[in-house]
Amino acid sequence: MGLVVQKYGGTSVADIKKIENVAKKVISTKVEGNEVVVVLSAMAGETDRLIQLAYRAADEPEEREYDALISTGEQISVTLLSIILNKLGYRAKSFLGFQIKILTDQIYQKARIVHIDTDVINQELKKGTIVIVAGFQGVDQENNITTLGRGGSDTSAVALAAALKADVCDIYTDVDGIYTADPNICTKARRLDRISYDEMLEMARTGAKVLQHRSVELAKKFEVPVYVKSSFSYGTGTLVTKEDKEMEKEVICGVTYDRDQAKITVVRVPDRPGIAAQLFTPLADENIVVDMIIQNASIDGYTDLTFTVSRKEIKNAYRLIEQAAKDIGATKVEVDDNVAKVSIIGVGMVSHSGVAAKMFSTLAREGVNILMISTSEIKISCIVQAKYTELAVSALHDAFGLDKTP
Amino acid sequence: MGLVVQKYGGTSVADIKKIENVAKKVISTKVEGNEVVVVLSAMAGETDRLIQLAYRAADEPEEREYDALISTGEQISVTLLSIILNKLGYRAKSFLGFQIKILTDQIYQKARIVHIDTDVINQELKKGTIVIVAGFQGVDQENNITTLGRGGSDTSAVALAAALKADVCDIYTDVDGIYTADPNICTKARRLDRISYDEMLEMARTGAKVLQHRSVELAKKFEVPVYVKSSFSYGTGTLVTKEDKEMEKEVICGVTYDRDQAKITVVRVPDRPGIAAQLFTPLADENIVVDMIIQNASIDGYTDLTFTVSRKEIKNAYRLIEQAAKDIGATKVEVDDNVAKVSIIGVGMVSHSGVAAKMFSTLAREGVNILMISTSEIKISCIVQAKYTELAVSALHDAFGLDKTP
Repeated sequence: MGLVVQKYGGTSVADIKKIENVAKKVISTKVEGNEVVVVLSAMAGETDRLIQLAYRAADEPEEREYDALISTGEQISVTLLSIILNKLGYRAKSFLGFQIKILTDQIYQKARIVHIDTDVINQELKKGTIVIVAGFQGVDQENNITTLGRGGSDTSAVALAAALKADVCDIYTDVDGIYTADPNICTKARRLDRISYDEMLEMARTGAKVLQHRSVELAKKFEVPVYVKSSFSYGTGTLVTKEDKEMEKEVICGVTYDRDQAKITVVRVPDRPGIAAQLFTPLADENIVVDMIIQNASIDGYTDLTFTVSRKEIKNAYRLIEQAAKDIGATKVEVDDNVAKVSIIGVGMVSHSGVAAKMFSTLAREGVNILMISTSEIKISCIVQAKYTELAVSALHDAFGLDKTP
Repeated sequence: MGLVVQKYGGTSVADIKKIENVAKKVISTKVEGNEVVVVLSAMAGETDRLIQLAYRAADEPEEREYDALISTGEQISVTLLSIILNKLGYRAKSFLGFQIKILTDQIYQKARIVHIDTDVINQELKKGTIVIVAGFQGVDQENNITTLGRGGSDTSAVALAAALKADVCDIYTDVDGIYTADPNICTKARRLDRISYDEMLEMARTGAKVLQHRSVELAKKFEVPVYVKSSFSYGTGTLVTKEDKEMEKEVICGVTYDRDQAKITVVRVPDRPGIAAQLFTPLADENIVVDMIIQNASIDGYTDLTFTVSRKEIKNAYRLIEQAAKDIGATKVEVDDNVAKVSIIGVGMVSHSGVAAKMFSTLAREGVNILMISTSEIKISCIVQAKYTELAVSALHDAFGLDKTP
């Protein structure tokens, strides 16, 4: 008994039959005595169809119009679910960003939610209405429609849960929880019962695709308990929650990988102050995100500088860096887009020693050469050759005993 | 030089190529020095796709949700046109019902526009923006999305023209104007240069499908000059305007037909006060619109009563009337759904005598039996057997010399 926010992704509402299935889940939550707020993504394929229309209309569609166009996808799914719930005899009402209102900033395509008005929803909940909210969308102060970026419906759901002070936020998706590794490449991967916000954040940032990382940031900030569950089965899923003592006992909670990595090395960079700025400013100016950066110790006043970018950005990045390298008098620029990032994550790392050493020796034993390393308090990432990705993930999963229930 | 409202129908925006064609027409109006407001329907087929989705979700989709669902069609077309205009270097912005705002009553599926806020549009026009408005939709006082009924985009356009005090409202469609008869069944049909609001209203009510009749009512009320033009060619089209002396010189301006007619006769109705009310109240209660009603002179205290309804309503109407007929002691109920209504329209009728006689004798000469007659000041309608529709239209078109330019 409480206030439950449930979010269903695109594959969960892909057709009328699947939406009827969602309706059943919603009703079962409602008849248990809960107040229910449902957040939906667009029907699978619909957003892609709309994006294609936009790009057939223009190579660079005007941003305001693009957002108003693709937001129709969620408008269709929420009204269909509401029609079905009403048919089944339940009072339900769909709401769009402007009707609630979900106020965002004006950064089209990746807007951030600034405020959610809870009056309309609370009034409807009091009447016993099942409230259905279009995910992914909001409006700015001038009533322009904005969208929150891919996976933005997760963020809509968590933000609504926070604003409504919901007891729980259920994210229904096509997997039944968060796994210790991607089950598609690691057969021994195990579903986690619980994971801390910080771990989930690192998992999302280093390649796990289940939750949009901004939704996790919000959940952490407002301490919203988030369950990741399957739309297609009944199970408890994985609870994303505050860190506790139990979690710290485990050294690591998961192994992730990210194949969308490319490595650029600038060879024999004159080691002068301001050189790094000269190299990276042109990339920043074109919004190219640089992930890992490594600078070797200087020899004879020269150093090598290596960094990674998204594989999609490699052409642009190479063009800019080649010019910058010439300008500062570096010898040459080398590119390797055949690399991947493999990471281990765990809050337990802080209190356990030898985690990094164990990771490196495990990879060495398998003959996997480490090209770059970067660490945070609860994460160690290594860049390796792409062909070793599966091997590295499985070996690390074994080495840290992730297949065994703690 | 002035303020022009242009409306383009579904076939005019059926695909990206056609929308690019619309963009060209809009630009040519803009570069002539006009301020331009564009109203669009949904891409041809899109509204039907959405309606199908709704009816696959439920046999009787909840009305509020249905409107929010099908209004997405116009949201897609207006954003695509705006994307194309921006690509071509023109400042353009799309607006939905809630963004303007186009306030309607709360009668879903056939809402009436109550008020249009002109501030937002006027501000944008001042900046030189081409303003693109989603037709067919509005919002009620509680920000629920409403739709105006089939052809509602015409009404959106005329209402905007009235609110903005536009100099002209151009309705672009797949024909190049209003014809003296449907060119598909009458080869001699001629495009009219001008037609009065009242004539256009009667044409629309009696079967002409070019303009939604509510849009004509609005145009008449606010004296908005409306041009009906082709999207696919350049021509002056037909001007719908105030009646003038020239128009009165012509006896009639057009012949129309409506095949969506069914005739019901209640035989030997006891001729008592209140009988008609007893027969028609059940129909009114189920929102069945009765068009023509004829009651013969009473013989021996009994009379026959004949009326017409839309062919789609005939099953429902028969069921209700059969019961009512029993209740009042009528002998039997006869149904004929193989009829059509043929009408002649013209403001000149008022000042010319013998128009009705000429119509009846023309039909008689062709062997067309008249089953029912109804008249208004500027219209005469006859119900005939459906198989005579084309013959009757062509014969009347000839008899009144409509093929000849006045």
